[in-house]
Amino acid sequence: MTGHVTSEDLKRYFLKDKFAAYVGIELISVGEGRARARLEVKPHHLNGVGIVHGGVTYTLADLAFAAAVNSRGHVAVAINNTISYIKTPKGTNIFAEASEVTSNKRLATYSVNVLDEEGEIVCVFQGLAYKKNQKVDFFESV
Amino acid sequence: MTGHVTSEDLKRYFLKDKFAAYVGIELISVGEGRARARLEVKPHHLNGVGIVHGGVTYTLADLAFAAAVNSRGHVAVAINNTISYIKTPKGTNIFAEASEVTSNKRLATYSVNVLDEEGEIVCVFQGLAYKKNQKVDFFESV
Amino acid sequence: MTGHVTSEDLKRYFLKDKFAAYVGIELISVGEGRARARLEVKPHHLNGVGIVHGGVTYTLADLAFAAAVNSRGHVAVAINNTISYIKTPKGTNIFAEASEVTSNKRLATYSVNVLDEEGEIVCVFQGLAYKKNQKVDFFESV
Amino acid sequence: MTGHVTSEDLKRYFLKDKFAAYVGIELISVGEGRARARLEVKPHHLNGVGIVHGGVTYTLADLAFAAAVNSRGHVAVAINNTISYIKTPKGTNIFAEASEVTSNKRLATYSVNVLDEEGEIVCVFQGLAYKKNQKVDFFESV
Repeated sequence: MTGHVTSEDLKRYFLKDKFAAYVGIELISVGEGRARARLEVKPHHLNGVGIVHGGVTYTLADLAFAAAVNSRGHVAVAINNTISYIKTPKGTNIFAEASEVTSNKRLATYSVNVLDEEGEIVCVFQGLAYKKNQKVDFFESV
Repeated sequence: MTGHVTSEDLKRYFLKDKFAAYVGIELISVGEGRARARLEVKPHHLNGVGIVHGGVTYTLADLAFAAAVNSRGHVAVAINNTISYIKTPKGTNIFAEASEVTSNKRLATYSVNVLDEEGEIVCVFQGLAYKKNQKVDFFESV
Repeated sequence: MTGHVTSEDLKRYFLKDKFAAYVGIELISVGEGRARARLEVKPHHLNGVGIVHGGVTYTLADLAFAAAVNSRGHVAVAINNTISYIKTPKGTNIFAEASEVTSNKRLATYSVNVLDEEGEIVCVFQGLAYKKNQKVDFFESV
Repeated sequence: MTGHVTSEDLKRYFLKDKFAAYVGIELISVGEGRARARLEVKPHHLNGVGIVHGGVTYTLADLAFAAAVNSRGHVAVAINNTISYIKTPKGTNIFAEASEVTSNKRLATYSVNVLDEEGEIVCVFQGLAYKKNQKVDFFESV
């Protein structure tokens, strides 16, 4: 067994994220400072005016951010996130695509776009993470 | 029957927020540009490292923000939110307290603190909302 | 001579801030996690459409933030700031009022309002600072 | 004479930005939702601890953002900006590179990176603008 971290290891790692699972978020791919997540929108994801709740799109973006930053191998925690809500999504699925903008010894910044099925950007998210000295244990049992 | 909007009207209005209900958020009080919400933290609210998920505290803050801004009587939508994560909450319950900072014809800004049971601030949230011409219909059936 | 830090010490400390001086910002008061700064708006502070430049109000808010956070005695650096622009200021002077929201061993958050002469809020600013182990040397010669 | 907007028109337009000129910012290129600006760092750009002031890098990023968003032909105003400070710049010049992330009828979001001479990212900036109905008059005399 090698130390190589596969996309499957990371997906398994994120299965431990109980809230992401409760919301119904699926991690599609992850690695090299990038991640992609998906959510099928259901009635319990809506807000009082019948559109996808801002907390849902935020959580989707945040999960992609966390997966991407942890894919670098160190445990990192979000310290500041900013989200701009651009438009109402069309279709059933929404997707979050996270990619690393900067990463140094202690801080990392990520950009996450949330898109709808038509490929239009629904939300723009900028995340700032603090990297701990601790390594991510991808092989730990879930 | 008068046009006076009671706290009960607003609570009822927010019952229509399916995601807030799914997450388990309770609106405690609302009115005059302020709102207070509560969440009892349960296992499905945790992230992969066993602490309250950032999406949960964000959703709690966002709900308090939405309730507070809508308490002014016009439908408002969040256009930009920023959240700083300060510390891990202690105890079972977390609370969000939203209050209006500014409000003009089109834009409103709100400050929301998320606190734990010991009264310590867990997250600091700044929300910017766009106010629509449409009035909130508090008396509409849920 | 005692170790007591006076408002004059802090003002002197901030005189070392060459850019704040170049812009024309004056620190009015500082201490106990709070600070107040003032700017008299002149033609070179305007943008292309003849109103106060967003970089000016930001710099005013940032200086009040820096003064307030350093008033706690540890060197702190801003790591993330968010600013919402609410309205065009009226009158000649603008003021920034910074106050501490949270402060723990490593992170501090501050809220800064920029106001015009009529006392109306022009900008709302949320600052997140990282506190270094180093102490502020208020008695160092300028 | 055609209605075609050249990079020179836009540069001329931004010469009207008195504060950018006062700070010493130069607009290098602009067009199609993108812009690049430069600043040669001088002693009056430094803060109290001898590094480039956060208000300077912010103003540089903000100018690139404004140029890029206005290059689309409609007057736009910043309503919310977020900046993360990543590292101290090396060398004499710093550069801001703005690019459009989204743009619809009313809102546009831009991402701006501030880089030092070594090409390393110093700051990451996310800007949200509100687009007015008014057209940019690039041919107006300065």
